[in-house]
This record gives sequence, C-alpha cells and structure tokens, in this order.
Amino acid sequence: MKNRIVNFSAGPAALPPFVLQQAQQDIINFKHSGMGIMEISHRSQDFIALGDEIRQNMRQILAIPKNYTILFLQGGASSQFFMIPMNLLKKGETATYLNTGVWSGKAIQEARRIGDISIGFSGEKENFSRVPQQKEFNIEDKAKYLYYTSNNTIFGTQYHYTPQAKVPLVCDMSSDIFSRPVDIEKYGIIFAGAQKNIGTAGVTVVIIREDLLEEAPKELPTMLQYRVHAKKDSLFNTPPTFSIYIMGEVLKWIKNQGGISTIEQKNQDKAALLYQTIDTSDGYYRGHAKKDSRSLMNVSFTLPSPALEQTFLQQAQAAGLSGLKGHRLLGGCRASIYNAFPKEGVQKLVEFMQQFQQENPA
Amino acid sequence: MKNRIVNFSAGPAALPPFVLQQAQQDIINFKHSGMGIMEISHRSQDFIALGDEIRQNMRQILAIPKNYTILFLQGGASSQFFMIPMNLLKKGETATYLNTGVWSGKAIQEARRIGDISIGFSGEKENFSRVPQQKEFNIEDKAKYLYYTSNNTIFGTQYHYTPQAKVPLVCDMSSDIFSRPVDIEKYGIIFAGAQKNIGTAGVTVVIIREDLLEEAPKELPTMLQYRVHAKKDSLFNTPPTFSIYIMGEVLKWIKNQGGISTIEQKNQDKAALLYQTIDTSDGYYRGHAKKDSRSLMNVSFTLPSPALEQTFLQQAQAAGLSGLKGHRLLGGCRASIYNAFPKEGVQKLVEFMQQFQQENPA
Repeated sequence: MKNRIVNFSAGPAALPPFVLQQAQQDIINFKHSGMGIMEISHRSQDFIALGDEIRQNMRQILAIPKNYTILFLQGGASSQFFMIPMNLLKKGETATYLNTGVWSGKAIQEARRIGDISIGFSGEKENFSRVPQQKEFNIEDKAKYLYYTSNNTIFGTQYHYTPQAKVPLVCDMSSDIFSRPVDIEKYGIIFAGAQKNIGTAGVTVVIIREDLLEEAPKELPTMLQYRVHAKKDSLFNTPPTFSIYIMGEVLKWIKNQGGISTIEQKNQDKAALLYQTIDTSDGYYRGHAKKDSRSLMNVSFTLPSPALEQTFLQQAQAAGLSGLKGHRLLGGCRASIYNAFPKEGVQKLVEFMQQFQQENPA
Repeated sequence: MKNRIVNFSAGPAALPPFVLQQAQQDIINFKHSGMGIMEISHRSQDFIALGDEIRQNMRQILAIPKNYTILFLQGGASSQFFMIPMNLLKKGETATYLNTGVWSGKAIQEARRIGDISIGFSGEKENFSRVPQQKEFNIEDKAKYLYYTSNNTIFGTQYHYTPQAKVPLVCDMSSDIFSRPVDIEKYGIIFAGAQKNIGTAGVTVVIIREDLLEEAPKELPTMLQYRVHAKKDSLFNTPPTFSIYIMGEVLKWIKNQGGISTIEQKNQDKAALLYQTIDTSDGYYRGHAKKDSRSLMNVSFTLPSPALEQTFLQQAQAAGLSGLKGHRLLGGCRASIYNAFPKEGVQKLVEFMQQFQQENPA
C-alpha cells in the first residue's frame, strides 16, 4: 500500500493492512453474496455466522471460559461507565474503584450518580505516573466489585499484574485488550471500545460472567440491561455491523500472527525498543510513567523543553511519523503502539529520536 | 461493479455504488493523510472538518433552521426510545404517542418506564394497516410532545402529512429521513438510525430544537444528556467514525442526485411502479397498507397462498432479487426501496412479478 505514513494515533488507531485490504473487497461483495458487508441484514445467515465466528475466535484467543458471555454493544466505554453500576449496584450498595487517570476518573464520576462508591487508591497527587501495588489499595468489605482501568492511555501507565480481590474485578481494557493473555476467571466484567487494539470505533466488547447478567433491575431501559443483549446474541436492535466485521478481521489477523502469546511478545519487543531509547538518552527523553507501571501500549515522554518538543513534533510529522503529540492534559509526546502498530514503525521513531537528540542538544 | 445483486433488504440496506467505491479508496488513504478513515483520530482536523461538512450538508438538503442542533449518537433508534423521555419528561409529566406498529410500540414501552404516556391512536386492531388521519387522534392537554413514527418498515405504512399539534412533534424517521422534504420547524426532535436511507449501521442522527437541550435532569448519566453531546459537537467520547464518514458520502450522493426534491420524485416513481403492479394484478398481489397510508419506502404485499409466496421468494432469489421476505410478524413479501435503491431494481422486480403471476395462476 503506497503513500501510507507511520501512524502513532492513540485511537482510533492504525489497523493491519491485511484487514484494510480485505475490507476493500468485502465492502462491495461479502462472501459472494452480491452485497457489501454494510448492505446485508444483521439477521441474515452470513451476519449471524460472522457473530458466531467472532465470539468463537475471542474465546479461543483469550481462553474465555464457557460461563462468560461476549456482547457487542454501542456507545463506547463511556456508556459502560454508567451501565456497569446501573446493572450491578442496587440502591445503597457499594463498589470500590481505583483511580489511575482520566478514564477511571470518568467512570467514578458516573458510578457516583448511581451507587455508593469508595476510592481504593488515587494516583492524582502523583499526576497519575503509576498504578498502585496490590498492598496499596483497600477494597470496601461490602463492595460488589473492584473496578480498575488496566491501561491508561493518557499517562502511559499499565498494570502488570492482576489485582487480587475477594469480589469480582470489573476492568476497562479499552486500550490493552487482546494485547496479552488475561486470567478471565478473576473478572466479573471486562469491557473495551474496539478502536485501539481490535478494530474501529463504534463497537464495544463486553465479556461478562453469566451470573451477573441477571443482577440488573428490570425497570432499567431495555437497551441498558446486559441480560437483554445476552439473550438476543447482541441482536436486540441493529448492531454496528461494519465495526463488528472489522473486529472479526482483526481477530483473524491476531490468529494469523500466532495468537495472544506472539502478540504479547511483539508488544513487549516494540515497547522495549522505545523505553531503551528513553533510558539511554541521558535524561534528554523522560518517560512520564514510573518504570514498574510503564505501558506497553502508550509511551508518554517529554523533551528538555516545550520548544524542543514542538520542533520534534514538526520534524517527526515531516518525516512521516504522525500522531506523536501528547494528550493536552499531560503535554509532551506520546507514541501509541497498539497490536497493529508495526515494529518497523517503532524502529523508525527510535532512529529519529536518536538523530534529533544529536542535532538538537538540550 | 460486478456480481452485485438487487438488494431489497429492509436495513441495513443497499448503498449507492458511488459511496462504496469512494470508501474503498478512503479506507487506505483518507484525504491524502497517509492514513485510512478508520485510523485517524476523531480529534484530528480532517475528522472535525468532516463533521462540519456533514452538518452543513444536512442543513442545506433538509433546510434545517439555525435553532436546531444536529447530533451524531450511538445506540440506534432503540436508544432514543428511552433518551427522549429521560431528557424531556420530568416526573409526573406526560406525552402523547401514536402507535402505528412495532417501532412506536417499543418506543411507548420504554417511555412508560419513565413518564406518564397517553396513546393518541392505536392501529393495533387493524393490524397496523394504516396511519391515523389528523382528526382521529387526541393529544393530551398537558403533553410535553407528540411522538410518532413517520414510516413503519414492517407494515409498510407512512404518514403523508405532518401531524398538527400545539406541542412539539418528536418523530422517529429512521426509515424515511432524507427521502422527502420535512417541515423541520414543526418538530422538537427528529431522529433516525442511518442504516436505511443515509448510510450504514452504528450512527443515529438526532435533530433537536436548541431550547430542548436544557430540559434533561443533570443527574442523568452524562452520555444520556443531549446537552452534553451538543456542547461537544458530538465528540464527547469517540464517535462511530466510519459510520459517520459513510453518512457524509451518502449526503454528497444525495446532493449530486439533485437534492431532496429529486430524491423525493425518484422515490415516488419507484413506489408507483410497484403499487401499480399490485393494483393491476386482479388481486393476485395484495398490499398490506391501506392506499392512503402506503409507504414509499417499504412495500409489504402477499400472494394468493403461503405456498406461492415461498415459490415466489425462492425464484426471486434465484433471479438475483434478494431480501424480499416479509418480516416474521407480518409474513408475506416486502420490497424495501430506500433512497439508494435503483429504479432499475424496481423494474426488474415488477417484470418478475408479472411473469410469476402468469406462470403461477392462483
């Protein structure tokens, strides 16, 4: 594919060329149906088979046990922020949240409109430069669940262990789902918007332990009850068919890559290249995250001055390295290197960083 | 484009080839950015410009006044069924709904969980074979709005006038938006899932009179408040970027066709061909809808027997005419002929129907 650049976008993010090329064909004629993938009924055999295939591939890749249901919903992770407490918390009930950045902060804000939320840890005073260690957080005795965000896109931090709790874990894995193996049985709910690691915007995956499906008050709006979507195989209403299709192609690509361990190894290799460059720059590049919390998905770093950062970003863009500007809340630079981001792209960035440092001393 | 069939799907439905071909290119490289449309940030200049262009085209095509805001949301029309009463009805307040089929029925069911709903008309006893006339329905004195479904996809009925009311109209136009001019100023809210007349599944358009934005209780989940999406230009969270893009291409196609009057004329011509065939078949084909309520979008009809219907559907499929099976609630056959459905497709169906009748007498 010609004229493509190196795309470090934080999400929506780069997709595998394999997926894009397949989509070019399937947009016109999906599975020899004579219709494009966007034009077929969500109740057609072809689409129902697609949904089954995707769930099957997810189960295989992540080793999702049978007592978990996989849902494809709309509204992004932001809709899960209120659906989770609406479904799981009855009046007066409590849940514990770990606050490690903007996204868990938003989740807490929405949950507080519904239940009695305790904060088990907050990284706010340290500008969210790390996630907590197990011994640092307290879980409310009566908590229905422990909520956390496994990877924090803005601050570039990530949990490298599974929090232990006597209650089910509920986890926003929007930015690292399918990037590494997960011990699913520890979780009550895992959810993720697709647009970072497994596809394009418009579909949210919810992996939910079956016994939790029935928790929701039946007076909730029908669309907001997990049980309804589970009963209808995520076809209660018209689903975001194209986004689901793209997710299916990304999962095929993950399988072709060799499955989740290969993907994890590649992600570790890519991130190591970048963090090594930062660590051997004599303090020219500084990572925001503390070392034990470094994200393999989003590498947030600064240069010696805002002026140098601006020059860096401009020259990077000119060199075909796009999307490196940090989030406005943190400033600096950020390289998002999700599953589909190629190692060659990281190598180009690393070479660029080294050359830039030489040419622009602090 | 080769190997394409005639696609009568009720939605997701056929898209203009112009749109599909453009999408094939933009999936790889959007606006010379070196990134595909699915891979660019929703906060990038290119995507923000796209949103502005789409709203501008919508305003121009449908003559939407300045005091109306256009939102791009997720969750389908089914999510509007509860968002509307959640945003517009305070405790104890009432709204009047006209029940003309499955979709208004579902809207009523969801609204009743929230407010005090009165039914101004129900077509249930007549198996929803028509929409009411103005003189037939009563609007509650204290109603905050009058809700109706402008086109009923399953029963193939459509309003051919704008209901008059002293209160704002709220209308589900999922299956006929952008198929004909609309007197927007009569409406408080117009909403539509995109997958029938203006694109692919995953995005819902909400056109809302600005003064109604502030009605919602502020304790509602943030994502469920129209005001939030309005303030953020529908970028409060990651929107369904590809579905929005496709909608933009469909709107360009509508403009290229000559705008809304040309589209309306084409829709009238297509439907007339089909209804004439039904009306001149000596009762072999029978339309479900009463004549004054006939939908220009969905033509639901039966044959002399279920056995003949089955043969008809099989032979039609073999002849490259797909998606003609009626909805399971009504049975029979249904031809969905939305904006993008070509006249040649209707001509092929009409010829097929005439030949089938000759070869298979009742």
